[in-house]
Amino acid sequence: MRIKLDQTAELLKQADDILVLSHKSPDGDTLGSASALCTALQRMGKRVSFACSDPIVPKYQNLFNAFVPEHFTPKYIVAVDIADIVLLGKETEQYQNSIDLAIDHHVSHKEYAHMSFLDSCAASTTQMVYDILCVMGVAVDKQIANCLYTGLCTDTGCFRYSNTTAKALRTAARLMDAGADAAEINRVMFDTKSHARIKAERMALESITFHDKDRFAMMEITKDMMEQSGATESDIDGLAALPRQIEGVLIAATLRERKDGGYKVSLRATPPYDASVICAEFGGGGHKGAAGCSFHEEKDAVKQKLIQAVSGYFLAQGI
Amino acid sequence: MRIKLDQTAELLKQADDILVLSHKSPDGDTLGSASALCTALQRMGKRVSFACSDPIVPKYQNLFNAFVPEHFTPKYIVAVDIADIVLLGKETEQYQNSIDLAIDHHVSHKEYAHMSFLDSCAASTTQMVYDILCVMGVAVDKQIANCLYTGLCTDTGCFRYSNTTAKALRTAARLMDAGADAAEINRVMFDTKSHARIKAERMALESITFHDKDRFAMMEITKDMMEQSGATESDIDGLAALPRQIEGVLIAATLRERKDGGYKVSLRATPPYDASVICAEFGGGGHKGAAGCSFHEEKDAVKQKLIQAVSGYFLAQGI
Repeated sequence: MRIKLDQTAELLKQADDILVLSHKSPDGDTLGSASALCTALQRMGKRVSFACSDPIVPKYQNLFNAFVPEHFTPKYIVAVDIADIVLLGKETEQYQNSIDLAIDHHVSHKEYAHMSFLDSCAASTTQMVYDILCVMGVAVDKQIANCLYTGLCTDTGCFRYSNTTAKALRTAARLMDAGADAAEINRVMFDTKSHARIKAERMALESITFHDKDRFAMMEITKDMMEQSGATESDIDGLAALPRQIEGVLIAATLRERKDGGYKVSLRATPPYDASVICAEFGGGGHKGAAGCSFHEEKDAVKQKLIQAVSGYFLAQGI
Repeated sequence: MRIKLDQTAELLKQADDILVLSHKSPDGDTLGSASALCTALQRMGKRVSFACSDPIVPKYQNLFNAFVPEHFTPKYIVAVDIADIVLLGKETEQYQNSIDLAIDHHVSHKEYAHMSFLDSCAASTTQMVYDILCVMGVAVDKQIANCLYTGLCTDTGCFRYSNTTAKALRTAARLMDAGADAAEINRVMFDTKSHARIKAERMALESITFHDKDRFAMMEITKDMMEQSGATESDIDGLAALPRQIEGVLIAATLRERKDGGYKVSLRATPPYDASVICAEFGGGGHKGAAGCSFHEEKDAVKQKLIQAVSGYFLAQGI
């Protein structure tokens, strides 16, 4: 059942022995939402625990500084920023049928909880958690503000992406008023690249080729590059956005070589062009700005197919 | 004489035949401030003109869409975002002794105007212009909001830098309410790299060397790289920030080869370390986070001097 802000705040007020869950491969929004909620609920005198299928990478560990997880049999289970129950992952899939409350901002949310507080207009789930804490009368201090700001800035690319609303900026302002270390969080989240990332980025940049009057760019991330650079998935996060940023490029593809052979293609389009239309030709899909599809062919064959598809797309667009 | 917001608004209301000046090598803040002011004052029925010593690069040309410059002998001259009179540049230096009003947010502002409205806490000069327009009772429409947002987002690195205040975020929120195309402006300002930039960036990445347990990184931008990539000054804007972003790097230097020989060094430091202390050893200076100095030696000699200075600095810091 879908519920609203006031009901969500009321349910949380009444609950105790609460387990908060983040999605697997946790990002700043799921962890910021969980840590803010855990810290706030524990301060209210409730017993609170947290679980996530994957470990928390170092840059997010500070979020849980003021929270001491407790051990108990949960009576109330809350999932934050989890769009689909399959995103719980192995370690927490035992809770898949017993989630009492889901708080989420994903437009693709597939309802799985007894109660769901959903707002696809929210820039981040932490923005929703901020509103919940305000309605609950919780004092948002520096620690909680840092958690909430982390989710807000990571999900909006530091207020750069199109999901940034005036409300998101106002929430960020209120979090700064509450003491959020915005500049330091931004530095850690956006201004720090691993050595492996720098190496992988350099190799990926070298692989870029241009086609169709430089309007289509292709970049490769091969198994060999990953090995040579020592990069992990987290290291190459966001790299696929790079070729689309090049001046004049309208469509950009990043070909990621799969461990089991074949390629996963991530396609980006500059507005008003539509990457999902091209991916649909190959059985893939996504959004206008970013879409994906998969291939089992060799690299050169994949490239040829993409060049043809993009060329056909441009022709159909009359450009 | 220093004046306040209300007086500034009153002076502009009374003025006519107004010339607005931007600084040379104009950026988003000086142009956003000037275009917003020109557009607003012209709508109030005043005769308005604009001048700048250097041409406006394409990405900023939209700012002046709603403004038609007029020809007249100026009776009131306003300088926006100009910290020092020498920044007028050749084409407008004729006005250096006759500036009636300066509106600026630089902490280093050297007063040169008859009246100065200064606020070093403002994240951008456009943030100050927004307040002025509000006090003047000007309706901030989409066009003016776009001008003001451009200055705010470019001067704060899209709300990432430490000069971003809660007020800056609130002003951005109000500009979005007024219709600013934030996502599109962010895309043009931050998500577009020239082909030459990509080439220069790749070469610069390849030049990075690490020293002192990888805590000190050095990057080169040589004349040869500039030639090979075809990059202009505007193309390599911000590139010097790159080596400091690498994980574990506390001090980073970018060695820029000068046309007339020698090197200009841009030094960056991760808080709490201080780049200006190291640059001071070589007769340079700047801020804690970013400082600079110059050398007339060959590259290898410059590198050795820097390695020694940084090593000494780390030792003095007890790290």
